[in-house]
Amino acid sequence: MRVTLLLAFLLVSTPFFSQTEDEKQIKSIYNKALTDGKAYDWLNYLSNQIGGRLSGSVQAQEAVDYTKGQLDSLGLDRVWLQPVMVPKWVRGVPEFAYFETKPGYTTNVPICALGGSVSTPSGGLKANIVEVQGIEELEKLGKEKIAGKIVFYNRPMEPTLINTFSAYSGCVDQRSTGAVEAAKFGAVGVIVRSMNLRLDDYPHTGNMRYGDTPVSDRIPAAAISTNGAELLSTTLKLNPDVKFYFKQNCKQLEDVQSYNVIGEITGSEFPKEVMVVGGHLDSWDLGDGSHDDGAGCVQSMDVLRLLKETGYRPKRTLRVVLFMNEENGMRGGNKYAEVARSKNENHVFALESDSGGFTPRGFSIDASDDNIKQIQGWRDLFEPYLVHMFVKGGSGADIGPLKEEGMVLAGLRPDSQRYFDHHHAENDTFEHVNKRELELGAATMASLVYLIDKYGTVTTQKIKG
Amino acid sequence: MRVTLLLAFLLVSTPFFSQTEDEKQIKSIYNKALTDGKAYDWLNYLSNQIGGRLSGSVQAQEAVDYTKGQLDSLGLDRVWLQPVMVPKWVRGVPEFAYFETKPGYTTNVPICALGGSVSTPSGGLKANIVEVQGIEELEKLGKEKIAGKIVFYNRPMEPTLINTFSAYSGCVDQRSTGAVEAAKFGAVGVIVRSMNLRLDDYPHTGNMRYGDTPVSDRIPAAAISTNGAELLSTTLKLNPDVKFYFKQNCKQLEDVQSYNVIGEITGSEFPKEVMVVGGHLDSWDLGDGSHDDGAGCVQSMDVLRLLKETGYRPKRTLRVVLFMNEENGMRGGNKYAEVARSKNENHVFALESDSGGFTPRGFSIDASDDNIKQIQGWRDLFEPYLVHMFVKGGSGADIGPLKEEGMVLAGLRPDSQRYFDHHHAENDTFEHVNKRELELGAATMASLVYLIDKYGTVTTQKIKG
Repeated sequence: MRVTLLLAFLLVSTPFFSQTEDEKQIKSIYNKALTDGKAYDWLNYLSNQIGGRLSGSVQAQEAVDYTKGQLDSLGLDRVWLQPVMVPKWVRGVPEFAYFETKPGYTTNVPICALGGSVSTPSGGLKANIVEVQGIEELEKLGKEKIAGKIVFYNRPMEPTLINTFSAYSGCVDQRSTGAVEAAKFGAVGVIVRSMNLRLDDYPHTGNMRYGDTPVSDRIPAAAISTNGAELLSTTLKLNPDVKFYFKQNCKQLEDVQSYNVIGEITGSEFPKEVMVVGGHLDSWDLGDGSHDDGAGCVQSMDVLRLLKETGYRPKRTLRVVLFMNEENGMRGGNKYAEVARSKNENHVFALESDSGGFTPRGFSIDASDDNIKQIQGWRDLFEPYLVHMFVKGGSGADIGPLKEEGMVLAGLRPDSQRYFDHHHAENDTFEHVNKRELELGAATMASLVYLIDKYGTVTTQKIKG
Repeated sequence: MRVTLLLAFLLVSTPFFSQTEDEKQIKSIYNKALTDGKAYDWLNYLSNQIGGRLSGSVQAQEAVDYTKGQLDSLGLDRVWLQPVMVPKWVRGVPEFAYFETKPGYTTNVPICALGGSVSTPSGGLKANIVEVQGIEELEKLGKEKIAGKIVFYNRPMEPTLINTFSAYSGCVDQRSTGAVEAAKFGAVGVIVRSMNLRLDDYPHTGNMRYGDTPVSDRIPAAAISTNGAELLSTTLKLNPDVKFYFKQNCKQLEDVQSYNVIGEITGSEFPKEVMVVGGHLDSWDLGDGSHDDGAGCVQSMDVLRLLKETGYRPKRTLRVVLFMNEENGMRGGNKYAEVARSKNENHVFALESDSGGFTPRGFSIDASDDNIKQIQGWRDLFEPYLVHMFVKGGSGADIGPLKEEGMVLAGLRPDSQRYFDHHHAENDTFEHVNKRELELGAATMASLVYLIDKYGTVTTQKIKG
């Protein structure tokens, strides 16, 4: 009788036990991250011993060597470098700019070349400047008012958007294609308001593209700090005849050899089902790339270590991938997907952290509705950690090329309020990363990987029947 | 027929319209806060023009005058100062401490006197030091091992607690009553590990109490930085015979006159039902009190302005109260409640912000279950702003004395990860407050006040039938 009762109890209470097991495993992941995390130490090295890791730079190579060495030391099943050729753009000597209200009356403003831009003539470039609120305004002004001038894109990020990434998306066209579009109207250069919600003195770089524009028609592009943009705009209202001078000697060199850094724990039951967790190892050159995306790299590395240290052996193959060249080429992400396809690898899940090392708020998920619903069903497991947001949406740039029908792609969504204060600027530095916030992000990622591995995605469940 | 249909539609859809009106009002509050908030400018003045505002100090009086002036300028119905006598404790010259492993071999460590502590003898205090993990360990050691020594309380905050305030609660007895308890065993002084989750060099002050201990039996108490505590602890393990020296000349002076600062919008329908929103104007003296609690004061002030500017006229009387002396006496909070009771004022709701100016995550609510349930029912209105946590729990120290049956007390709950990096320390300064995070907090408070005012609490609804 007692045995029967016990059996009945066990049968009835299986879901309860299972829940408790998940709760326990997730608790042990968070505890480990908060008391014995490695992410912060790794980030300290990447940021303070190596620094900014622009694709093709010596620092980028040092970061490859360092992270490979650290992954080697974790006792994973396999660690390797995946070769990829990357563009090499160099900033050259510090940029310089001023505006001139009348000959000899000049005011210096902080600028930096946009990544990928051509240089100015060696003596710099001086011309009248015309302010616009966006690319669509060029058409209205026409060649007549633009030709021979510098175009000043000054549409700010929209402060009322709670998700600051949405505000970024609403502005970044000015940076990425502003030069190409302005050149069509005869502009000789462009100055773009920094993608920053705060008023301060840091110019924020970032990628721009010339597309098919012939080399001879490429015009130089620079970012101006938000305070600089406000000052210039106010001055232009008082005196539309302001001249702007800037000088930069950045250039695009030949492509160079680089690498994605990959570590793997081979799956114990379904080794051919691959889960990826990653960030990008390259960064811009102005700061040390702590938030963008040193944080995502060290969190991803710690996901494998946290699972290992808490005694969880993944059933599926789990890879950490530190992608090279997200910032100005996406070569690493494309290469990883290309190799995966050529080897017929079955990727079932990929998770990227590339939104800063701030307090984790949740995930955005790019997957079918039933796969999203499955993950949303785990929300209660994350609530004790104040992780509450499980929304349909984008995942991450580097894992995007992996996308296939049935696959689950996800992005960690940290609190976004402070991200653009630092993004691509000189103040994206280690001291602006909080140890606990970084660790909570790593634990949140590891917990989702654990659940996906344990239960499979809806897609993998269907295939297995 | 068309009129009938329209009527039917209106009847059926009233809840929908009503919801939309709330959504619109809340959106307009957030938009106003993020594009035209005043909180950040006010905080800039409080922090950078006035600075730390210890009760009874000149700066505390300056803060009273400044905030009253700002409230006067908002065109409220009434602004006044509520007199309250406050304790005046002064730190004196900077504290100094070292430990000595053998005569002449000394290592300086950063300390600060705990608020309310007596001074050391004028030449300082030097004695052997004994480390404990908490008050309960004193009993175990007994007089024999404690008498004539300095007790070093070194139990750290628990890093695995996600809510850092829980970790604080688990440690703060060492600071508040550690001296009284150690004195019972003949200790001559106490050194307390700073209430800080991070390892750094800032000592964190905070209140301690002697209770009924006769003046002659009071021993001096100081906080040591977390790095200092670690170093001292390691050294003690190698050499238990370490001597500790510290010197501080703080003292308790006579009580002085001070004020709560109060502004009011008189209710248009139920003027006798009072809602309070507030923070505390006093702070510790080491930093400028930006997070604790300049942030809460300026957010509370902006609640009234945001409602006014978005065209919402409260039905109930809405008061902003900037309480004096939360840190070392609670005289302001007690005085406000005392006066409210003596005037038979009917307080239906009080909301305090005293947990830093970080991204708002939700509210903790101290009320009856049906009142809590009502607020939790509004959760969807807050979700677009990523405010998701509506939990039963404490509210705020200053509004606590108002508590009555049927009343709703609430505390704003911002993200807590970084709070104790700054709390009561030299680095609680303006540059560590993010403008958007502060503004989001103000908007979140204003939105709750709007909902409480519009719908009443469950208690007020019941009374009205």
